[in-house]
Amino acid sequence: MKLGLLTAAFPSLSLAEVADWAAANGFEALEIASWPSAGAERRRYAGVCHVDVGALDVRAVREVLDSRGLTISSLAYYPNPLDPDPAVRAHAQAHLRKVIEAAARLEVNLVGTFIGRDQNKPLEPAFADVLESWPPLVKFAADHGVRIAIENCPMIFTDDEWPGGRNLAYSPALWRRLFEAMPGETLGLNLDPSHLVWQFIDILRVVRDFGSRIYHVHAKDLEINRDGLYENGVMSVGMGWQVPRMPGLGEVPWNRFIAGLIAAGYDGVVSVEHEDRAFEGDVELVKRGFLLARNTLRPLLV
Amino acid sequence: MKLGLLTAAFPSLSLAEVADWAAANGFEALEIASWPSAGAERRRYAGVCHVDVGALDVRAVREVLDSRGLTISSLAYYPNPLDPDPAVRAHAQAHLRKVIEAAARLEVNLVGTFIGRDQNKPLEPAFADVLESWPPLVKFAADHGVRIAIENCPMIFTDDEWPGGRNLAYSPALWRRLFEAMPGETLGLNLDPSHLVWQFIDILRVVRDFGSRIYHVHAKDLEINRDGLYENGVMSVGMGWQVPRMPGLGEVPWNRFIAGLIAAGYDGVVSVEHEDRAFEGDVELVKRGFLLARNTLRPLLV
Amino acid sequence: MKLGLLTAAFPSLSLAEVADWAAANGFEALEIASWPSAGAERRRYAGVCHVDVGALDVRAVREVLDSRGLTISSLAYYPNPLDPDPAVRAHAQAHLRKVIEAAARLEVNLVGTFIGRDQNKPLEPAFADVLESWPPLVKFAADHGVRIAIENCPMIFTDDEWPGGRNLAYSPALWRRLFEAMPGETLGLNLDPSHLVWQFIDILRVVRDFGSRIYHVHAKDLEINRDGLYENGVMSVGMGWQVPRMPGLGEVPWNRFIAGLIAAGYDGVVSVEHEDRAFEGDVELVKRGFLLARNTLRPLLV
Amino acid sequence: MKLGLLTAAFPSLSLAEVADWAAANGFEALEIASWPSAGAERRRYAGVCHVDVGALDVRAVREVLDSRGLTISSLAYYPNPLDPDPAVRAHAQAHLRKVIEAAARLEVNLVGTFIGRDQNKPLEPAFADVLESWPPLVKFAADHGVRIAIENCPMIFTDDEWPGGRNLAYSPALWRRLFEAMPGETLGLNLDPSHLVWQFIDILRVVRDFGSRIYHVHAKDLEINRDGLYENGVMSVGMGWQVPRMPGLGEVPWNRFIAGLIAAGYDGVVSVEHEDRAFEGDVELVKRGFLLARNTLRPLLV
Amino acid sequence: MKLGLLTAAFPSLSLAEVADWAAANGFEALEIASWPSAGAERRRYAGVCHVDVGALDVRAVREVLDSRGLTISSLAYYPNPLDPDPAVRAHAQAHLRKVIEAAARLEVNLVGTFIGRDQNKPLEPAFADVLESWPPLVKFAADHGVRIAIENCPMIFTDDEWPGGRNLAYSPALWRRLFEAMPGETLGLNLDPSHLVWQFIDILRVVRDFGSRIYHVHAKDLEINRDGLYENGVMSVGMGWQVPRMPGLGEVPWNRFIAGLIAAGYDGVVSVEHEDRAFEGDVELVKRGFLLARNTLRPLLV
Amino acid sequence: MKLGLLTAAFPSLSLAEVADWAAANGFEALEIASWPSAGAERRRYAGVCHVDVGALDVRAVREVLDSRGLTISSLAYYPNPLDPDPAVRAHAQAHLRKVIEAAARLEVNLVGTFIGRDQNKPLEPAFADVLESWPPLVKFAADHGVRIAIENCPMIFTDDEWPGGRNLAYSPALWRRLFEAMPGETLGLNLDPSHLVWQFIDILRVVRDFGSRIYHVHAKDLEINRDGLYENGVMSVGMGWQVPRMPGLGEVPWNRFIAGLIAAGYDGVVSVEHEDRAFEGDVELVKRGFLLARNTLRPLLV
Repeated sequence: MKLGLLTAAFPSLSLAEVADWAAANGFEALEIASWPSAGAERRRYAGVCHVDVGALDVRAVREVLDSRGLTISSLAYYPNPLDPDPAVRAHAQAHLRKVIEAAARLEVNLVGTFIGRDQNKPLEPAFADVLESWPPLVKFAADHGVRIAIENCPMIFTDDEWPGGRNLAYSPALWRRLFEAMPGETLGLNLDPSHLVWQFIDILRVVRDFGSRIYHVHAKDLEINRDGLYENGVMSVGMGWQVPRMPGLGEVPWNRFIAGLIAAGYDGVVSVEHEDRAFEGDVELVKRGFLLARNTLRPLLV
Repeated sequence: MKLGLLTAAFPSLSLAEVADWAAANGFEALEIASWPSAGAERRRYAGVCHVDVGALDVRAVREVLDSRGLTISSLAYYPNPLDPDPAVRAHAQAHLRKVIEAAARLEVNLVGTFIGRDQNKPLEPAFADVLESWPPLVKFAADHGVRIAIENCPMIFTDDEWPGGRNLAYSPALWRRLFEAMPGETLGLNLDPSHLVWQFIDILRVVRDFGSRIYHVHAKDLEINRDGLYENGVMSVGMGWQVPRMPGLGEVPWNRFIAGLIAAGYDGVVSVEHEDRAFEGDVELVKRGFLLARNTLRPLLV
Repeated sequence: MKLGLLTAAFPSLSLAEVADWAAANGFEALEIASWPSAGAERRRYAGVCHVDVGALDVRAVREVLDSRGLTISSLAYYPNPLDPDPAVRAHAQAHLRKVIEAAARLEVNLVGTFIGRDQNKPLEPAFADVLESWPPLVKFAADHGVRIAIENCPMIFTDDEWPGGRNLAYSPALWRRLFEAMPGETLGLNLDPSHLVWQFIDILRVVRDFGSRIYHVHAKDLEINRDGLYENGVMSVGMGWQVPRMPGLGEVPWNRFIAGLIAAGYDGVVSVEHEDRAFEGDVELVKRGFLLARNTLRPLLV
Repeated sequence: MKLGLLTAAFPSLSLAEVADWAAANGFEALEIASWPSAGAERRRYAGVCHVDVGALDVRAVREVLDSRGLTISSLAYYPNPLDPDPAVRAHAQAHLRKVIEAAARLEVNLVGTFIGRDQNKPLEPAFADVLESWPPLVKFAADHGVRIAIENCPMIFTDDEWPGGRNLAYSPALWRRLFEAMPGETLGLNLDPSHLVWQFIDILRVVRDFGSRIYHVHAKDLEINRDGLYENGVMSVGMGWQVPRMPGLGEVPWNRFIAGLIAAGYDGVVSVEHEDRAFEGDVELVKRGFLLARNTLRPLLV
Repeated sequence: MKLGLLTAAFPSLSLAEVADWAAANGFEALEIASWPSAGAERRRYAGVCHVDVGALDVRAVREVLDSRGLTISSLAYYPNPLDPDPAVRAHAQAHLRKVIEAAARLEVNLVGTFIGRDQNKPLEPAFADVLESWPPLVKFAADHGVRIAIENCPMIFTDDEWPGGRNLAYSPALWRRLFEAMPGETLGLNLDPSHLVWQFIDILRVVRDFGSRIYHVHAKDLEINRDGLYENGVMSVGMGWQVPRMPGLGEVPWNRFIAGLIAAGYDGVVSVEHEDRAFEGDVELVKRGFLLARNTLRPLLV
Repeated sequence: MKLGLLTAAFPSLSLAEVADWAAANGFEALEIASWPSAGAERRRYAGVCHVDVGALDVRAVREVLDSRGLTISSLAYYPNPLDPDPAVRAHAQAHLRKVIEAAARLEVNLVGTFIGRDQNKPLEPAFADVLESWPPLVKFAADHGVRIAIENCPMIFTDDEWPGGRNLAYSPALWRRLFEAMPGETLGLNLDPSHLVWQFIDILRVVRDFGSRIYHVHAKDLEINRDGLYENGVMSVGMGWQVPRMPGLGEVPWNRFIAGLIAAGYDGVVSVEHEDRAFEGDVELVKRGFLLARNTLRPLLV
């Protein structure tokens, strides 16, 4: 396994600047934020464009990476491809296709994204949406030789995302249904263990049960605010007691998690996703957050 | 404390028949189902009418109870008083007022119900609904010398109740806000510990923190299906892993719970609410379920 | 479910005497010890003959039970039908057939026994023995309309039973193989949760996974001597730290276990098996042990 | 084992009245409060005189007990025999001798008391006091054929008892030293498991390690107020978070505790000591507390 | 946050020698032992003088630090300012004032000390002492622009410190009273999580509840000797089962603790306090202890 | 303590090659595989010969080590010296004597081996074998000034080793008997904590109880496959749920384990034993496994 990072946490830096810092600080791979270069959504932790897939200069991108000894773990574009607004939905899917094409041209062959969800629909009609929209996307990716790693985030942290969250693919039962409905090797997981902590889902069993479907790994941690849990309970879903932290500061058992990945034969990138508010605000703080993550994970990634 | 039961589990028996059986089997109080005699909702565990508050014969009801040495713990009517359909909402509130009047006339002075919720609204607008509809209801009850015990059930067990559930009053944070918004002694809790189990909310702390607000107690247990929790996680809220059981068959620590109630000065009724599917189907099975509950609770209620 | 007891703990009493005491003390069923009337093995807790299947007087036996309002839960004969000594093995199988015939004639239709094991063979050759010897026995039982409940005891408590124990059917993996190898409804489990405690096997999951195969239940508890476990570890298998106790005195969670049985649809007998050395030595002590078990289980069996 | 109660919780009733109620409610033995009939200390739960050892009428006392089928488990006198005030100390020891004599004359042969402590002395000088004062008391008891059961209460619940508490015999290390310093069979424990809960001492290990020294058992439970523990920590010793409760309402594992006693061969009385403030104030409440304790313990004492 | 160390563990080295070693081994700050240069107490871990506040050469001290790129986290002087001996008490307070003055002159502006306690007084009179002696000290510090960080050690490890310990400020309840009695920003905590382990006080809740009052942090770990706890129980307070260890060798969850500090906005020094007897005896061993602490903490302090 | 490794994981490299790599990667000591140079057993992880004790060139071996700044922690030869086949047994003991002589000549003075066992014999006769064979071996070692460190592995991972395993010295009870039977300082433990995990034996208590007998330490970890444990239970001994892992990937609490060793005064080598199948197959993978182990242990070994 290699240690990487998701570039979205550095919206003010160029890809070359991110690559400079990452390579100098022990990271070996970048997961490159690939939102549209203009008009992207303004959601927290999103909308960053470190590779403009609409005007892709393959050679320039590869030069940035190669010259620093870095690889690209995947292109990252996490919109809601099933947004209730048809225009937003269409735009997201169209851009997702561009990202897939870019991944093929860059020979990365892996795109990280969300399955999305019309947050206003209950589970079954929301799932029906998936079955309508996603098979063509999967076929498109397969035709380009690109695999898609779906992140398992419920995408519900604020009232704006209530009630269903903007990403349906958050539980073992749903993954199983997705993989049955869209067989083949194209669709897999971008597994982020932090989302399992707040769902009270056994992380190690997920790694055992879905090992061969893990195409990418997000390293993020989660602290449960126990007073918040007492006050609000699990009915409040993602709001009130789930605190994203840098890896090593929360409840993910990183040694056992990495041990499980090794046993499952995973040999890809562990990509640090930075959403810890204690390490935000200026670039130096963001970097310190990444360093802490590196210090946690580096000893386990030999 | 006394041991009681909620009569709604015996829809096919008359009040007198329920009273006969209860008194003969060690119960001391009835929580009488008071849905409308006609046209009531057909929700599972609801719609039962053991006292017709539209045509109340106070003397007859009291005679049924007194002759068997039983008391009434409260009148029970659990609709959604904030139903999104204005007609349903108006009907529920109108009937609730009749139940309150009946409780006053019967000198029971306690009504158990739900705060309700427009299940389609997020928390804050749903809470605004409460603040609009409930103060007049609380005043009506206070004017009749009747207290209202709100059950803490999230009322979300099926897709029909998705996404918000039909009862907003499910967490300490929300109870606190409710009691602050509607001060006075009229509003309190009908505390059912089973709902706290599946919300991962500390039952004993609830008893300590809200002791003086506990006006009635529902004895119901909950078994967590651990495989279901793994498959679905807490995002699935009330669906997929929460199994209502008779008291003694689940994860509620009854001795510590009753100990807390004693310490909090609660001296009302512990009323068994029967929603265990393993003891349903015919009246004999239902009775066996109540007997198991009695065997669990009787030794603790001296 | 009914509460019963295994009569083998009363070797000095007649069946009528056992029935007298059991009926007078809240038991509803007997699991009748059916070892040969003469020449039986002298193993602790074995060799007792309360029904002489070699000279069966059906009417007399039924009269003893019926007159006291008791039923027979099963006939009990727990030898090693796969004893390494061919003579012992043949004798055990021959007598087992007689017990099966008796169960049919008595209309009990259930026999509790061990699958047995040549204790000196490793797992696979020992399992091969089972596949050779048991199909004819199963067919014999099926032909008589009798089901066989295999107890899940590893039968290794002393050096005499070392190294393999005298009963192969002790784990979920082995039960699964047995039921696959001998399909049909004849073979099931006589589930004793105490043996799962010392094997560190999740009791509640066993009930969920094998619910329909539970034909009979032994109520016995187990205390783990933690100092003994430290000294010897699990390599010492059944020797050194497993202390059989009356139900309620050990680590079996009886409420959750019975709750699981109810949910699984089990409606047979929970039969107390008495192997608690603290309640042995004279008949009065033995009876006190049974009373303690009754006090633990009776409230849960409604 | 038999179920008994300590009569001190009924200061306003006569011995005969206590005996009436106890016998009618399933108790089999009394631990009789034997403080001086006049001038006794006014400590909470102390100072009660149900047998006036200064004017003992053996026949009358036995008649009260025998006529109701009760036995005496021990005479109870729990002063501080090592009080820093020499007069108080002398008086306590003098009265203790009278209680011993009374126990001999009543053929009870067991006295429950405290070892006491000069609360102002650190451990070693306090222990030296014990070695000076107690050997003659032990000899006196032995000469009368009476055994002494020392309760393991630290006797520190208020500032008045600060800093050392008024009873030194509260831990395994101290019991061991006491029994080594005063060998023979006269001195043993009146084991109250509730005091071990708040000392975080393993109850079951105590039963295993000191089984033969358990001469009497107090059944009392303890609830740990977890908020109080957070606020004050264990430096506050007995003040701020230890809540005495009736057996069954706290953290003592009664089934495992009784199981341990059975295995240790204890066959004496389990005597309910009532110090639960939720069941005090009038005699009816006190009785309800005892009934709850009885309901908890009765099923385990066969 | 920066990594520092308390120089008191190097009594035989000069400040410059300590600074040399610390800077060369990854430490960024020193907490300088500031006991009187002569006549200081001879308590273990105390009495060391690395800055002679009675003859302070500001420029020389700063030169030692600056030249090695180190900062001073605080001046450390941990006497008992409320010693029962008036002379000792007066001397301690007088020297404390000198240390405060020195901290101001050195522009460190932080002094770490104990609140102290007359160990022979119960809590309330001991607290009254605090209220009498401390307001002038707090005012003195405030006048000099210096904050005081009170360490939360109960200071009771031997009979000499029995019964009350020599530092009253050991629990949340007491800190809360102290901060209410002496409002303003002068007084805060020098939080040492190891003392919370042996008081069974939730470390993470302390960080949440008192975050803004944490002015300095001591990194020390604690191992609970479970056999010692069984033998002695918590009545023995600090004696018999609490083993100070280097950070990483005990029960403090360092990642969660540091995570809490980050979330609380703490950005000061984490100063390793060395009291691990397994790493004492010669300077090399002491250094190895510090290195182990550094290896534990360094990855978390970015 | 020093960090070392057991060379047996590198059968294809020469001692010099192993030493090169170890020294360059932070290891300080080698535990040198000393099986016979020819005809050695072909068991997994065995049979490697990095020092040919039959043709020992002391100077050459020392040169390899000294030139790279490495020490030898012990010579490693783990056969079954009590093999049921007399020829195999004799050969093993003969070679063990040669290894002992070599250890003396190399001035290592420590040999790691198994006590062995005739796996077909029950405990007591197997123990009798030990008492017959081992005293002369111990005497031989003592005469050469060499200590013997017995590894605590039960040596039962396959049916071939069933039923007793090939090494009797796996539990505290057995070590105690061994040390009593063969007093003196020659015999001690080569403690591998991973074997204690799967025996459910408290690792930290072992370190406390046997500290002075720990002559060498193997660093290996163990993951318990919880599904495998459910399926097979502990009756399956070493087969079906115990997964050897590199240190840091399993359930051994390395910080507490090393803390215990430090407190016990152990100052020898912690030697990584590599049996993690996820890091096998080619030399690079094997090295990565060792690096992960180093990263786990290095920070704790100062």
